[in-house]
Amino acid sequence: MGASMTMAEASIEQWGVFEAGLAGPQEGNPFTEVELAATFTQGDRAVKVRGFYDGQGVYKVRFMPDSPGEWRYRTESNRPSLDGRCGEFRCCAPSAGNHGPVRVAQTFHFAHADGTPYRPLGTTCYMWTQAPADRQAQTLQTLRGSPFNKLRMCVLPKRGYVPREDSATAYPFEGRPQAWDFTRPVPAWFANFERCVAELGKLGVEADVILYHPYDEGVLGLDRIHGADEDRYVRYLVARLAAYRNVWWSLANEYDFIETKTEADWDRLFQIIQAEDPYGHLRSIHNGRVLYNCTLPWVTHASLQIGSAVADFGRAELLRDAYRKPVIYDEVKYEGALGKRWGNLTAEELVCRFWFGTIGGTYVTHGEVVGSSRATPAWTGLGGELRGQSPPRLAFLRAVLDGAPGPIEPIDKWQDLRTAGVAGKYYLVYFGREAPTEWAFELPEAGLTEGQTFRAEVLDTWNMTVQPVEGVFSLRAIGEYRFADAAGRRIPLPGRPYVAVRITRAD
Amino acid sequence: MGASMTMAEASIEQWGVFEAGLAGPQEGNPFTEVELAATFTQGDRAVKVRGFYDGQGVYKVRFMPDSPGEWRYRTESNRPSLDGRCGEFRCCAPSAGNHGPVRVAQTFHFAHADGTPYRPLGTTCYMWTQAPADRQAQTLQTLRGSPFNKLRMCVLPKRGYVPREDSATAYPFEGRPQAWDFTRPVPAWFANFERCVAELGKLGVEADVILYHPYDEGVLGLDRIHGADEDRYVRYLVARLAAYRNVWWSLANEYDFIETKTEADWDRLFQIIQAEDPYGHLRSIHNGRVLYNCTLPWVTHASLQIGSAVADFGRAELLRDAYRKPVIYDEVKYEGALGKRWGNLTAEELVCRFWFGTIGGTYVTHGEVVGSSRATPAWTGLGGELRGQSPPRLAFLRAVLDGAPGPIEPIDKWQDLRTAGVAGKYYLVYFGREAPTEWAFELPEAGLTEGQTFRAEVLDTWNMTVQPVEGVFSLRAIGEYRFADAAGRRIPLPGRPYVAVRITRAD
Repeated sequence: MGASMTMAEASIEQWGVFEAGLAGPQEGNPFTEVELAATFTQGDRAVKVRGFYDGQGVYKVRFMPDSPGEWRYRTESNRPSLDGRCGEFRCCAPSAGNHGPVRVAQTFHFAHADGTPYRPLGTTCYMWTQAPADRQAQTLQTLRGSPFNKLRMCVLPKRGYVPREDSATAYPFEGRPQAWDFTRPVPAWFANFERCVAELGKLGVEADVILYHPYDEGVLGLDRIHGADEDRYVRYLVARLAAYRNVWWSLANEYDFIETKTEADWDRLFQIIQAEDPYGHLRSIHNGRVLYNCTLPWVTHASLQIGSAVADFGRAELLRDAYRKPVIYDEVKYEGALGKRWGNLTAEELVCRFWFGTIGGTYVTHGEVVGSSRATPAWTGLGGELRGQSPPRLAFLRAVLDGAPGPIEPIDKWQDLRTAGVAGKYYLVYFGREAPTEWAFELPEAGLTEGQTFRAEVLDTWNMTVQPVEGVFSLRAIGEYRFADAAGRRIPLPGRPYVAVRITRAD
Repeated sequence: MGASMTMAEASIEQWGVFEAGLAGPQEGNPFTEVELAATFTQGDRAVKVRGFYDGQGVYKVRFMPDSPGEWRYRTESNRPSLDGRCGEFRCCAPSAGNHGPVRVAQTFHFAHADGTPYRPLGTTCYMWTQAPADRQAQTLQTLRGSPFNKLRMCVLPKRGYVPREDSATAYPFEGRPQAWDFTRPVPAWFANFERCVAELGKLGVEADVILYHPYDEGVLGLDRIHGADEDRYVRYLVARLAAYRNVWWSLANEYDFIETKTEADWDRLFQIIQAEDPYGHLRSIHNGRVLYNCTLPWVTHASLQIGSAVADFGRAELLRDAYRKPVIYDEVKYEGALGKRWGNLTAEELVCRFWFGTIGGTYVTHGEVVGSSRATPAWTGLGGELRGQSPPRLAFLRAVLDGAPGPIEPIDKWQDLRTAGVAGKYYLVYFGREAPTEWAFELPEAGLTEGQTFRAEVLDTWNMTVQPVEGVFSLRAIGEYRFADAAGRRIPLPGRPYVAVRITRAD
């Protein structure tokens, strides 16, 4: 992804990044004074994108073609040297592993543009793009060997930030702490960020890009962007990043803890992104204590910080009902042993929360602060290496989900809180912290008829074992709402917590 | 409330029903052809209300004055005999027990217009207004001796309805089953309904008036009102009922099970009510399996059917967060022993659900189908007498709530799921189905400082006992998030389920 060039490339893969570079004026303030856009056309279709100034007299226009064949473009600008420039390129088939951007699918789930299911199993490295280059490389190496396919990451640094490079590219804007010139972004800062996004894309990891956070509290002052500066910052980000297929827009982390913005500001920023991003990348906002109204049309999915919602049965699903959109519990507390209660989950508890979320038809995101200190920063801060015990168990969960015939849905919501799957075909029955020694084979009636047969396996989600149960189970109705095994068979269970039964059709 | 008269009464209490009766044309169809409205003025204020045809050449205009003093009115009509009619009346102070209509207060709660807190403790008698007169009287008598202060009740009958009176007033519209003339409401039908509303008002019971339900399925065909007929039905209801201070508008029971209407229909009906009701009575809609978007501006509070949301800790509150409005779990399954799972709760379980709802900062509504048969219809169908074991326990809960210094709020939401109350002043710690034998005195930190002292009582919410705990508890901080008794005292508990500890400030 993201090859840079002077004018145009001969061939760009579908959902790849086409980039046109144009020479233009350097005088004055090119960020505020020069307007540049380009309209890309294919047959009857026309897609207009904003260009951006990349410094040193170079302007760029990026575009993500979503269908193969010839594309043409023509620029518009208030400067003659950038206006009416034309070009064309050929869009070829996507390469292996390129399934296009992720969209909402089946109301509560996700799929890539080519229809490939996407099941979020995210993690969090808020500031990894600001780490030294060797640590960035280590983060990517770690992700390569991990089950994670989404990464939450901030654009802006926070208090305590140590610039990783020379002062010319140390910050996202010209100026100095507390005295920024928000009219002059530093292109090298954003180029580093987008290189990180592109590297994630190569790994098949979605970049959940966080535009704002409350962790500076005015110390650096980079969080004090307002009004026209703010709108320009957001448009600049979209112009640079939207052509990367793996971008998601997360307006903020803990938005309601950012005291310098109102709800109307967030509404406006959402609408700017909606208007500027021609590809409709996913849009969300992450809460502190107050939930944003995720039913609003510019929110594509709920990105929630509510650990307790995935800490027991029957909770995760309720917010899905309220929003009628996919729900990702993007912060559920982190694996670690900090004095702070947001960072003191055992690995067992964190893995259990992923399963409660899964059984509720929702998704959960990982974070860890295991063994963190100044010398060994936490994964969830600066990236690096994973030290927790949960990731292998989350890889086990991912393998389970990848083997399911469809998205995991509650089968009899508000009634049977531990059974989910694909009605009539596939079930996961999860027991959480309970440690049963047996389970009477029984399922909610949706999609079932008498005589259907199923096989079962016992999954130990912590010890990562799959134990097939001998024989098949043949259904008979019991009452109006349930089916059981006709012979009344019970499945022996190991008497340990974190066990599930997986049930698949045998006929 | 609701005295009828020819022209005007000398004096109407604040939030009482003023009614002006006017003689007008009988020819043609007065319901569709005659327009009537009146504007009531007091000083600079003007409130316009729709009038309605009440049959036999009588037209009426009703008005609920919300401030004392002189009020004048003037009618407008497309018929000369009804146009430009003027009158005046004096509004006097409200009588004892009249606190005005109920409004949303403190985001998640309710209060009467005069500021008196209103804590919903509702019950359900869907079809009581259609029962014979002696049964209606019995229902009112039962309510008088009950803890309930809200009643869910349908306007329209359902399949199996047995008309309670002579055929001329047996149905809400002229015509016959499957062949209704929806342009001609039967005033006597609605007069009976509004008399029932008025009687509830005298008892201090809010009438949660349900405009539609899915329980006819076209058999009578009264549920097949559409288009202009539907809008006229809703406007007629509002014109007749809105002046009754205890009216709430519930657009439907199980709205999503009504297959002949779309979401856009419900949106439109909400907006009609919002436009027609000058008093802004509470507006909600009750779901089957799909939740209506309760964040929409015309919804004042969420009226939910989700029994599981109040069947354990940590669930009820989540939907309050999503909606940022009061939440009433208006159907949580009924006390009874029916084969249907919606009617098979033990009294213990139903009472427990009220407590889970309370601890979540929400409200719960009662229903019972105890001992029901054709000979002894269920309370929740036709009213009559309560036969369940839950109502006395709900009276106990109501006494607890009435004794609290403010609305019950989760104190440390998403963290401490069993503690609620008024931070720094008053706490309820509920143990649900657990049966602990002791509890270490410990509270979330909000509003607390070291050295503050509290008293405690042990409440057995099922056996309805209050046992004071000897001595006072003096606070010391334990870690960042909690306070405990400085002496580490533990409170002995009876080892039974359904126990709570009530904690009040002693200093």
